[in-house]
Amino acid sequence: MTPTQLQNVSEAADDIRRLISQGDLAGASAVLTPLSVPEVVELVDRLGIEDAAIVYRLLAKARALEVFEALSPGARGDLVGALRNVEVTALFAEMDPDDRVWLLDELPATVAPQLLRGLTRQERDLTSGMLGYPHASIGRRMSPEFVTTHPHLTVAETLVRVRAALGSAETVYTLPVTDGGRRVVGVVSLRDLLSAEEDTVIADLMSDAHLAEVTEDAEAAARRTTDYGLLALPVVDREQRLVGILTIDDAARILKQEESEDAARQGGVEPLRRSYLSTPIRHLVRSRVVWLLVLAVGATLTVQVLDSFEATLAQMTVLALFVPLLIGTGGNTGNQAATTVTRSLALGEVTPRDLRRVLSREIRVGFSLGLLLGMLGFALAGLIYDWHIGTVIGLTLVAVCTVAASIGGVMPLAARAIRVDPAVFSNPFITTFVDATGLIIYFLIAKAVLGI
Amino acid sequence: MTPTQLQNVSEAADDIRRLISQGDLAGASAVLTPLSVPEVVELVDRLGIEDAAIVYRLLAKARALEVFEALSPGARGDLVGALRNVEVTALFAEMDPDDRVWLLDELPATVAPQLLRGLTRQERDLTSGMLGYPHASIGRRMSPEFVTTHPHLTVAETLVRVRAALGSAETVYTLPVTDGGRRVVGVVSLRDLLSAEEDTVIADLMSDAHLAEVTEDAEAAARRTTDYGLLALPVVDREQRLVGILTIDDAARILKQEESEDAARQGGVEPLRRSYLSTPIRHLVRSRVVWLLVLAVGATLTVQVLDSFEATLAQMTVLALFVPLLIGTGGNTGNQAATTVTRSLALGEVTPRDLRRVLSREIRVGFSLGLLLGMLGFALAGLIYDWHIGTVIGLTLVAVCTVAASIGGVMPLAARAIRVDPAVFSNPFITTFVDATGLIIYFLIAKAVLGI
Repeated sequence: MTPTQLQNVSEAADDIRRLISQGDLAGASAVLTPLSVPEVVELVDRLGIEDAAIVYRLLAKARALEVFEALSPGARGDLVGALRNVEVTALFAEMDPDDRVWLLDELPATVAPQLLRGLTRQERDLTSGMLGYPHASIGRRMSPEFVTTHPHLTVAETLVRVRAALGSAETVYTLPVTDGGRRVVGVVSLRDLLSAEEDTVIADLMSDAHLAEVTEDAEAAARRTTDYGLLALPVVDREQRLVGILTIDDAARILKQEESEDAARQGGVEPLRRSYLSTPIRHLVRSRVVWLLVLAVGATLTVQVLDSFEATLAQMTVLALFVPLLIGTGGNTGNQAATTVTRSLALGEVTPRDLRRVLSREIRVGFSLGLLLGMLGFALAGLIYDWHIGTVIGLTLVAVCTVAASIGGVMPLAARAIRVDPAVFSNPFITTFVDATGLIIYFLIAKAVLGI
Repeated sequence: MTPTQLQNVSEAADDIRRLISQGDLAGASAVLTPLSVPEVVELVDRLGIEDAAIVYRLLAKARALEVFEALSPGARGDLVGALRNVEVTALFAEMDPDDRVWLLDELPATVAPQLLRGLTRQERDLTSGMLGYPHASIGRRMSPEFVTTHPHLTVAETLVRVRAALGSAETVYTLPVTDGGRRVVGVVSLRDLLSAEEDTVIADLMSDAHLAEVTEDAEAAARRTTDYGLLALPVVDREQRLVGILTIDDAARILKQEESEDAARQGGVEPLRRSYLSTPIRHLVRSRVVWLLVLAVGATLTVQVLDSFEATLAQMTVLALFVPLLIGTGGNTGNQAATTVTRSLALGEVTPRDLRRVLSREIRVGFSLGLLLGMLGFALAGLIYDWHIGTVIGLTLVAVCTVAASIGGVMPLAARAIRVDPAVFSNPFITTFVDATGLIIYFLIAKAVLGI
């Protein structure tokens, strides 16, 4: 959206809300007419769900389908919940198989059989086949509608196949080349077909194929597709037989969804289903409250740690002054390490097997950072308070930074190893964990140095 | 990368390091031969920069260019720094104009004129034209090599143009349709061309075009391209004249780069230029130390706040026990709000003009969360310590959560309004800011309730 488009949408949303509340559907329809499909998508995303359903019904059938397919998965699920059964069944029949599976993932499991019954036999088979693949696998996100060619066919023969598939295949710009056993032996692009002589055989034209296995993680397959700028990635089963194709636009959609979830979890929030401004306040509260409670309960650890050192605190109130600074710095160091390693995991740059290398790197990085901050803390606290306090602060910073960076770096790998989303060990989680550890280190050092 | 591929690369990297240190380049070359281009890219990204340059030199020329183009922008910049001038000049001449501009953005400004001199006149003009567009604009990321058609041409005539451009155009799958003044009036896909009759005129076949203005933010244009699954987005100047085209694979590359930067800044780290495992320890320290220092200096505010309340603290040591819990909860609430709003900004769902709506939502969300946690805190602290303390903790949680959510929600919008990357007001930054505010609120409430 350009700023001008956003302005249009924002004004249209206000008009639509007013017109619907006045029962003026003809007026609302007139507001929709000049808007482009992307603008309607943005509009639907900004309206409350009841208004969004009314807007959807006011659209012409073809346009409505276009809008629906461009909505985010969460928004699609919500919209379907607000439509009547007969409308949903009609919509479902019009969708592509991969969009259908994506939608079913957003709906209660009981809805699926009823919707599938509304399909033709062939469509139902395509969709059910995809539903059989594991959750979050590329098998549920690929398209089963592709066009192939074979090594011994000529360019002219292949172009005939392409023309026959123009109406149905997900893409005709990248063609998997398969042998007699449906195994993928290469790919050929439409561009290469057009620039070759008509009687060239495909075997001379095809190049090596990147492949995804159908049970592979959808995010990993999508990442590979965009990383290498492939217009389409063939998806194969365990015997290397072609079962589907992932196009780059679907790969980008998958990554957008994953990035949004990662960003949310990293900040300790459950991902929203719809856009921020159209999400009801109670849903925003719900997306945050569980994590906040878990973290607050975790933070009672810090109360207990401090409680057990209360005698020391009462004797030296000055120690209390540095508590937020020390645990804050520890939290920041831990977050930095966790952020870097979580992102590297998402990009496939590190795997849980790199645990020892990551740990050794983070210990060194944390120690270097701690040394730097520690010297500074020693000098400042020493000058302003006294050199004993300075020594305590300096040593604590060295220890806390080293421990925090190590924990922050290792946590995401541990999460991945036990097959939990690394972003779940989010920054707030690490902060809370490091807080308690940092306090123990602080008071142990204080007791040792100050002899109390 | 599949796990097996990663394993291969990891082993190959170990072998290559050993062989290079033994001076056995023939052996290193033999290790490279069976690897695919993506595997070599991953390998180069994992090696130290000197070893990476040697590996690059061992590759056949065409393969070397393919590997280079698939590297991340930072890795490309580093590699160029390790190659000799004559090698860089040859490489530069082989690249596409958009890749050239991307590379120049990574290199010192003084290098550009020298590299541009090595190009043919036409290539130089294409590249310099792009360098004239603002930093971070889509003008610097688009491709100036496109093929167009006109409304009055037939399908057959257009296909002749497509065939002529097969070797040079960035894409032939989406064609911008331009009028006599080079203004874009629509787009037509190769798929539609192939399914139409040969004598159909383009005017009857073309559909409305999504467009980007050449000075528009590259991320916004890229986001639009992937959101609507466009294979290519025409880029126009102020007079709607076509100047370039953004393909979906380039859009995905732009978004990957932006997402990585956002993720890093969100955690208070400067983005890394290369993959985590190949980044030297001193670079990792450098990517974190500045933020950590800034935040630590900011955190001295908390020392001052506590110092000014030292008399209260000495009188009631029990107040110190809750400091980490209270400021931690405030920090978490602020982070949650900031994370949600920052992501919505990146997706174009909210703009700085939505400031008042965001503020009003975050006040309500923060108050709801505070009320919930506050009641819990009141009950627990009341039961374990006494009901005065319980009242202080409860009221503080309500106030801190409300303030933290408001600050966290508004900060990213304020950053965007003054044209700073919203992710710069990262979670650690908000935590530090909220810490000091939270402490003041805490002690003011404590003094009022406890009458000290």
